[in-house]
Amino acid sequence: MSVSTNIKATNVIWHEGEITRADRQALLGQTGAMLWFTGLSGSGKSTIAVALEKALHERGHLVYRLDGDNIRLGINRNLGFSAEDRTENIRRIGEIGKLMADTGVIVLASFISPYRADRELVRQLHEETGLTFIECFVDAPLATAEARDPKGLYKKARAGEIRNFTGIDDPYEAPEAAEITLHSDAMSLNEEVQALLQLLEKRGLIRISQPLN
Amino acid sequence: MSVSTNIKATNVIWHEGEITRADRQALLGQTGAMLWFTGLSGSGKSTIAVALEKALHERGHLVYRLDGDNIRLGINRNLGFSAEDRTENIRRIGEIGKLMADTGVIVLASFISPYRADRELVRQLHEETGLTFIECFVDAPLATAEARDPKGLYKKARAGEIRNFTGIDDPYEAPEAAEITLHSDAMSLNEEVQALLQLLEKRGLIRISQPLN
Repeated sequence: MSVSTNIKATNVIWHEGEITRADRQALLGQTGAMLWFTGLSGSGKSTIAVALEKALHERGHLVYRLDGDNIRLGINRNLGFSAEDRTENIRRIGEIGKLMADTGVIVLASFISPYRADRELVRQLHEETGLTFIECFVDAPLATAEARDPKGLYKKARAGEIRNFTGIDDPYEAPEAAEITLHSDAMSLNEEVQALLQLLEKRGLIRISQPLN
Repeated sequence: MSVSTNIKATNVIWHEGEITRADRQALLGQTGAMLWFTGLSGSGKSTIAVALEKALHERGHLVYRLDGDNIRLGINRNLGFSAEDRTENIRRIGEIGKLMADTGVIVLASFISPYRADRELVRQLHEETGLTFIECFVDAPLATAEARDPKGLYKKARAGEIRNFTGIDDPYEAPEAAEITLHSDAMSLNEEVQALLQLLEKRGLIRISQPLN
């Protein structure tokens, strides 16, 4: 048997024995999924994602956050803020999330992602391969988000120093059928986290926690 | 206290309590890393990666493979094969690998990746954030790789149906200081996997397996 034949045969054997998504899920004791937090700047997306990350990790789950810090300075450092680049920004995040969810990770992505079509593309990328996509609409009134203005961006947008800022001179297209809507001006952070954990349990993505009694 | 102040304060608190790479490593019992398999088409990169994936999974490690199938049809579907696009292809894979390794995953990337500068960029992306990058040179003589020709690509390249094919009319720049070189025409698949496992143990990335006696 030549080396060539040998390797081809080995390829086939190993192909049949390849590790699958189900194998990784069994190893981790969880189902990978994409939780996509969308909302205005200052609506509370990142705050909620950070708190949920902590709660999930403390329950023994593998979770990872994608946000502007690790995306815009990393894979998308060669993208600007034109309409085309903003769509490509979201598409790439969706593709990365898909790979991570396929790995078995619970991915928390927090991006303004103002356009419905972009979010629908990300949903489709996940659902067409059997992965769960959960759209989490962090719904704060513009006035509330603007009053918070954690990065001082609304101030700059109002002064005309930033153009095409979502909510000021660029539209935010609210989700029409988000899996969950969090009214961050009316709920406490803890209530928001509990609501998300309950949803994840209900969807069978994480273990159901035992009541402490 | 206004909602605004409340949220800002919460942000700070949660920031201090953010889950870190070390937290995820402790949860998983492993250190995320990037193993980058480079070599000619037909050298055996994917065969080795698939076998190593299986061996690591069976030891209880979380591992994920990145290859042409899940990259070129996914995040890099909008890239062609120009010099510029090939470099961008490798850069994006490097950025994705960095996020996954930061998550705690042992990432196995198998791409011809013929240019030294592209591989060095990926190494730098990992090492500058304290992540381990292991270059695995799968070194098969061109004649061997061409005789295998698992996808029939060498035949097409020789017939002029494919241009700029690595090894035929485009150069392969061999690594100068790869962490490991696997001579796939002289080692068995099992020997290659054992050599990789030993390297990962030595680097402290995975648990040392107990001898069976």
